[in-house]
Amino acid sequence: MAKRWAVAATDALKADGLRIGELDTSGRPGFTGDKKAGTELLAERALVLSDLQEKLYANGRSGDKRGVLLVLQGMDTAGKGGIVRHVIGSVDPQGVDHAAFGVPTPEEKRHHFLWRIRKALPRAGQLGVFDRSHYEDVLVVRVHNLVPPTVWEPRYDEINAFERELVGEGITLVKVALFISLDEQKKRLSERLNRPDKYWKFSAADIDERAFWPDYQEAYQAIVDRTSTELAPWYVLPADHKWYSRLAVTELLIDAFERLQLDWPPAKFDVEEQKRRLAQA
Amino acid sequence: MAKRWAVAATDALKADGLRIGELDTSGRPGFTGDKKAGTELLAERALVLSDLQEKLYANGRSGDKRGVLLVLQGMDTAGKGGIVRHVIGSVDPQGVDHAAFGVPTPEEKRHHFLWRIRKALPRAGQLGVFDRSHYEDVLVVRVHNLVPPTVWEPRYDEINAFERELVGEGITLVKVALFISLDEQKKRLSERLNRPDKYWKFSAADIDERAFWPDYQEAYQAIVDRTSTELAPWYVLPADHKWYSRLAVTELLIDAFERLQLDWPPAKFDVEEQKRRLAQA
Repeated sequence: MAKRWAVAATDALKADGLRIGELDTSGRPGFTGDKKAGTELLAERALVLSDLQEKLYANGRSGDKRGVLLVLQGMDTAGKGGIVRHVIGSVDPQGVDHAAFGVPTPEEKRHHFLWRIRKALPRAGQLGVFDRSHYEDVLVVRVHNLVPPTVWEPRYDEINAFERELVGEGITLVKVALFISLDEQKKRLSERLNRPDKYWKFSAADIDERAFWPDYQEAYQAIVDRTSTELAPWYVLPADHKWYSRLAVTELLIDAFERLQLDWPPAKFDVEEQKRRLAQA
Repeated sequence: MAKRWAVAATDALKADGLRIGELDTSGRPGFTGDKKAGTELLAERALVLSDLQEKLYANGRSGDKRGVLLVLQGMDTAGKGGIVRHVIGSVDPQGVDHAAFGVPTPEEKRHHFLWRIRKALPRAGQLGVFDRSHYEDVLVVRVHNLVPPTVWEPRYDEINAFERELVGEGITLVKVALFISLDEQKKRLSERLNRPDKYWKFSAADIDERAFWPDYQEAYQAIVDRTSTELAPWYVLPADHKWYSRLAVTELLIDAFERLQLDWPPAKFDVEEQKRRLAQA
């Protein structure tokens, strides 16, 4: 366990039995340090993550079919983009398959909700990142009744079956839901309205969505209750402190990579013979 | 012009009239500093690049169709991967569309050589990176006679027409060819054979290719002579010093972004009205 964690992030953040409404979004479960300690540790652990990712990539190039997929969910301004930038940004871009899922296109709408997801799955040896995901189809879709309950209700089981399939194919899922308080969101939206270099991140719809906060909490609760499985557990992250959520995601990813027990792939050639050939070439 | 550059990288590295065979691969054209100065400057300029890339991304999200595409070519071990890791790795992964082109798949072989290239073009607002590219079809293909000259010969014109089309669509091309000496390559291949954590990067074919060095030089010369255009010039980089080539690519990218004259996109909403709405939400 990394230093300053009294309880490993994987244990401290597992969603089991958690009531979303009771979550302290300003908490830092498991971590005993302050912001300074957390930021320093993040820089250190980013190097560990980067090394592990390179090992996965190397194995992928050598025939290993496995991959890791980070699924990020959270309300607007919860910090998904910052995690991509500051956590995923610390590893080699060659090894990252990033996909963001917005409002479905007309073509996507004509297909099963998992169609666009399947097309974006990480390739062998890659670290996949989903900025929003198939869970939108039981979140925004459920909250706004974009389809009737008879359509979204069976999706929880479909998602579990889908994720079981992914795990069977060798993909380690790291599912992370970020939670901020309604007040913290107001602060962050306000920043976007006060800084011209942030206008582009703002949408009037983000304010509309605030009225549906309790409905979203209920929809997130359903996700945690029904799709946090042994094979693909949810991690629930208090995200009012950006430094904490970034550090926590880094630890969750490191844990996922370490469970793959990666080593450098062995040479598929006779090393001494190739050295002799190179000497003469 | 960034400090310590006596001549801007764009001028010092432009391919115009260059004889590849006469290139000093250990040179640092235009740069007056040493490795320490270059490494420090790289860290500084990476932040500038990152800010510019965020502006492009922001504009892309606001309807701007433009993009930047870095095309990387070079012999094995020339440092393409290191540039992706250390230069492209300094910007937000969300804004990067990375594609590596290896031996064409059977499906790719059934199509025109630009088919797989078109599918991988950067989306609006993105920084695209091609690790190898359509130029492989007049490099390895020409050197090994994988298709007859009647097929590869017209490709130079096809490439120029294709790139003219890209520029017309708003894509700024930054074409970079990295050159190392035969000795430097031997050193780098030898390192891959001496470090078990590098075995995965080695292929026996890399040694075979050394016998074709003069043919590759000729094929690169043809590229520079025939496809370095006003709209899409080639930059030829001496790459024996990794720190230099990384710094130089950073400067070339910064120049490309600066020519787009990007500003933060204006608000598409009434800022004061949204502030009032937020206060009440």
